[in-house]
Amino acid sequence: MKLIEMAGAIVAPEARYIAEARNHLDSLTKPIGSLGELESIAARMIAIGRGHVELPLKKAVYVFAADHGVTEAGVSAYPKDVTAQMVLNFLNGGAAINVLARLHDAALTVVDVGVDAEFADALGLYRAKVRRGSRNMAREAAMTEDELDAALQVGFDLAEETLAKGETLIAVGEMGIGNTTAASAITAALTGQPVETVTGRGTGLDDVGRSRKIRVIHAALGLHFPAPMASVDPVEILRCVGGLEIAATVGFILGAASHRRAIVCDGFISTAAAALAYAIAPKVKSYLFAGHRSQEPGHRHLLEYLGLRPILDLDLRLGEGTGAVLAMPVIAAALRLYSEMATFASAGVSEAGVSEAAG
Amino acid sequence: MKLIEMAGAIVAPEARYIAEARNHLDSLTKPIGSLGELESIAARMIAIGRGHVELPLKKAVYVFAADHGVTEAGVSAYPKDVTAQMVLNFLNGGAAINVLARLHDAALTVVDVGVDAEFADALGLYRAKVRRGSRNMAREAAMTEDELDAALQVGFDLAEETLAKGETLIAVGEMGIGNTTAASAITAALTGQPVETVTGRGTGLDDVGRSRKIRVIHAALGLHFPAPMASVDPVEILRCVGGLEIAATVGFILGAASHRRAIVCDGFISTAAAALAYAIAPKVKSYLFAGHRSQEPGHRHLLEYLGLRPILDLDLRLGEGTGAVLAMPVIAAALRLYSEMATFASAGVSEAGVSEAAG
Repeated sequence: MKLIEMAGAIVAPEARYIAEARNHLDSLTKPIGSLGELESIAARMIAIGRGHVELPLKKAVYVFAADHGVTEAGVSAYPKDVTAQMVLNFLNGGAAINVLARLHDAALTVVDVGVDAEFADALGLYRAKVRRGSRNMAREAAMTEDELDAALQVGFDLAEETLAKGETLIAVGEMGIGNTTAASAITAALTGQPVETVTGRGTGLDDVGRSRKIRVIHAALGLHFPAPMASVDPVEILRCVGGLEIAATVGFILGAASHRRAIVCDGFISTAAAALAYAIAPKVKSYLFAGHRSQEPGHRHLLEYLGLRPILDLDLRLGEGTGAVLAMPVIAAALRLYSEMATFASAGVSEAGVSEAAG
Repeated sequence: MKLIEMAGAIVAPEARYIAEARNHLDSLTKPIGSLGELESIAARMIAIGRGHVELPLKKAVYVFAADHGVTEAGVSAYPKDVTAQMVLNFLNGGAAINVLARLHDAALTVVDVGVDAEFADALGLYRAKVRRGSRNMAREAAMTEDELDAALQVGFDLAEETLAKGETLIAVGEMGIGNTTAASAITAALTGQPVETVTGRGTGLDDVGRSRKIRVIHAALGLHFPAPMASVDPVEILRCVGGLEIAATVGFILGAASHRRAIVCDGFISTAAAALAYAIAPKVKSYLFAGHRSQEPGHRHLLEYLGLRPILDLDLRLGEGTGAVLAMPVIAAALRLYSEMATFASAGVSEAGVSEAAG
């Protein structure tokens, strides 16, 4: 499916669903607004469900994995092989995201959209390799147009599957050594923030490594976007300085939003994908939740760009979808409160100010 | 048991447990420190358990309820009757804390330490009424010395029960119309912050109501503590401007810490109790977690006083233990990651910098 059709298929929920949900929340036995963000989360989920959300939620997490050609420029503290090693760790159940997905009952799918290694069929692995790693953005576009289209299509196809499976709360995560370099380049191009501001230490670079990473990003942005940034097409940003897993995530988010699924972004990389999806199709925002705020400095700028408040803020910087899955119980709790709390009328509790006049 | 004995019975875990836990965390398949606060939480829980914590955690929440004589000064948006009405709502399962306790599998006990109503025996109700409400702090001390001792003893006794039941993660919450007035007075007295800074709208006061509340707190503090605040004994702060449920919570926290239980504070009122417990026995801090940061303005000053970082920050201001129980899955997740993640060695994943030199 073409990107433009996918973007056009996204319909924001009508505002009345939010208003109806707010009315219901105000009838529950608690001071008005005292559940804070949980009330916003519940109202948004109810709106996504057009007035109703089936509980328990059917939770899933998709981890998009790919390698990055730019690693040959020395932008990561870890060797590139770690992408494939971590995919195997996911398939063996030993990574952080496995532990959290088990704990919070989220079905885990690992999506090989571009890892520089071959994997046999395995339970939980979705094989959709477009290329063994993106191209080095410091020398050429990270993807050709065909490669970008193929990676987006992987995401569209997976989004169809979430609909078929009836998944109602979907976390997106990623694995790819070098991908904070791509996310920083995307963030600088999309938000106009200086590269220095949005570039962090990734998995653990020292000062020298971080300086090199900043130089590489400057070079890549200068190569692909010599004109002023403000005019750059988000699809071109994705193609030139993105990555295969980021492109697949953009396609997935657009597709999932078109199917009215609630999507929880994880950290810097998946939020970069969400920000690109939002730049392409602003209506996607109605379906997005920010699971957490990462310690990576660029992440807060993406969250501001998207206008999303993170549910958690625990200095995580692991990726894999960990922050998104950790936030799922908060979303589940918001909906349970919405559906199970007694009302003032049903519980015989006095409302503010009412009995005071009488008593 | 006398307060001084209880305080003396608290032993902080040896520092080596934290160091050992950090070593283990650094062996897991993730960049060093990339799980952020989850690593601190896991290490602190492991230290509380002296090297080992049985999973799944045995979770409980204790909601201490009492009325406040100071409500006759018009310090709340809700009528005093709501305390008793909400206790009945708790016993009927319709309040926010019931929903969250069910969702997160925490055993709920409602403790009547001073509600101005009589309750029949009921499942989940612990009857330990000291008096039908505290005295009006604007005219006299909120509690006599005997009343304070009795309320503290309620907490000590309940802490014994948590040990007998084997509960390993214990949330403390409260219900008491008027109790943000007590918590603001305690916060001003304990932290030295101006009354205006630490006094909020409680359950929903307007500007006029909040001004009246501030005047009442000023009057109470002036009556009981004419000398400079810095010299005031925390036990006297508790007795003069606290409340029966706050005193029972102080006793409970001290008792639970002496039994090496991990305690999760909720919002402004339960954290005021924790801050008093800390002022009385600083070693209690090793056992305390801050479930969240409340929207009540005084809460952040108490968290700073305690040196605790809140796990959640979602603008809740409901009390009942809601923020504490909402934070429990984060603590559980930290421990599951600690116990279940693969190590670099077991998963065959390269560590930072290691393979780079070889490759």
